[in-house]
Amino acid sequence: MMTLFGYWRSSASYRVRIALALKGIDVNHVTVNLRDGLQKDAEHLLRNPQGFVPVLVIEDGTQLTQSMAILDYLDRKFPNPALLPEDPIFRSKLLAASLVIATDIHPIQNLSVLKYIRAEHGQDDGGVKNWAQHWISNGFTALEKTAQQYETPFLMTEVPSLFECCLIPQVYNARRFDVDMDQFPKLSAIDAACQEHSSFIAALPEHQADAP
Amino acid sequence: MMTLFGYWRSSASYRVRIALALKGIDVNHVTVNLRDGLQKDAEHLLRNPQGFVPVLVIEDGTQLTQSMAILDYLDRKFPNPALLPEDPIFRSKLLAASLVIATDIHPIQNLSVLKYIRAEHGQDDGGVKNWAQHWISNGFTALEKTAQQYETPFLMTEVPSLFECCLIPQVYNARRFDVDMDQFPKLSAIDAACQEHSSFIAALPEHQADAP
Repeated sequence: MMTLFGYWRSSASYRVRIALALKGIDVNHVTVNLRDGLQKDAEHLLRNPQGFVPVLVIEDGTQLTQSMAILDYLDRKFPNPALLPEDPIFRSKLLAASLVIATDIHPIQNLSVLKYIRAEHGQDDGGVKNWAQHWISNGFTALEKTAQQYETPFLMTEVPSLFECCLIPQVYNARRFDVDMDQFPKLSAIDAACQEHSSFIAALPEHQADAP
Repeated sequence: MMTLFGYWRSSASYRVRIALALKGIDVNHVTVNLRDGLQKDAEHLLRNPQGFVPVLVIEDGTQLTQSMAILDYLDRKFPNPALLPEDPIFRSKLLAASLVIATDIHPIQNLSVLKYIRAEHGQDDGGVKNWAQHWISNGFTALEKTAQQYETPFLMTEVPSLFECCLIPQVYNARRFDVDMDQFPKLSAIDAACQEHSSFIAALPEHQADAP
């Protein structure tokens, strides 16, 4: 059985949990407590020199890092149901929407960046909140325009895809930073549809064994 | 023929230019002058609501955005030579290394983020340089550890892959911010190997028609 080193509140871990649930794959879950900084421990740095979660350890012992690369592995190895379609254009469009979150929102309001702007730029809780809200709203504004072009219950599709694996953890994060989701009605509707879906419910941070 | 809306100095445009050259694909190049802020013009926002370059407009008029999604499209549509291998594990590992750059370095020292820390956090040129150096060095330190495990001229491979499409523009950027590349001997060796490769030479910022 594969082992997922993750953390209940980590967005990137949450993405992988959704994909595993969608594909019906059981894994061992091992927590790496980000609150206690255990991701920077020597033991975890051997798993991932970046000191990030998630890390997926597959049956042969290979340690896979970077959530989007883990999702690519899962989609190749366990293709049903697919996270991305086969058609190169459709696939690229769904991937691009996913990458708005995975490259242009999530890393900029990641824990290590928030720590840096507190320590080096003297930002307080308000400054940190402004920062997170700015980048989340920026990305969501662009995604909302894209989403408005489609009538489907999920982005461009009838079933959840890689995009929803990225969106739902980011919306969870947006709520933590008091982003007004009413600005993004279509993204909110996709989020609401996912909240009723068993795979997304199973992957919820509060439903994990390491949640307080 | 496809059209690439890009900018000579944009890292993400540079990535796509390398991939096109590796695959021997000719495209029309149209410049979107980032220095003059033309990426936020209404005309460009119709191509990409994020207001970023590159945008690849393919023959049927579809506008593809997000460099990593454009590279995925190119690799599916024009599979030879491949940017990523077929084997799910090997592929995931190369993709993960590429994503260290595409998610955890590049977006954090992107133009819009640098503008924000100047305007909102009162950072001067020195503060901006510290910021860029910090995130580049962070990511490169992790990648150097990975790269040290392999004897191949390119990361994990005998020929350039998606990883080098990401690495070379990021090294170019690192030099602009005076990052000491001597800290990263294996990454520097990969960069040097690419600098002698015709596809990488063709894609160089200074060799573009819109370079000053």
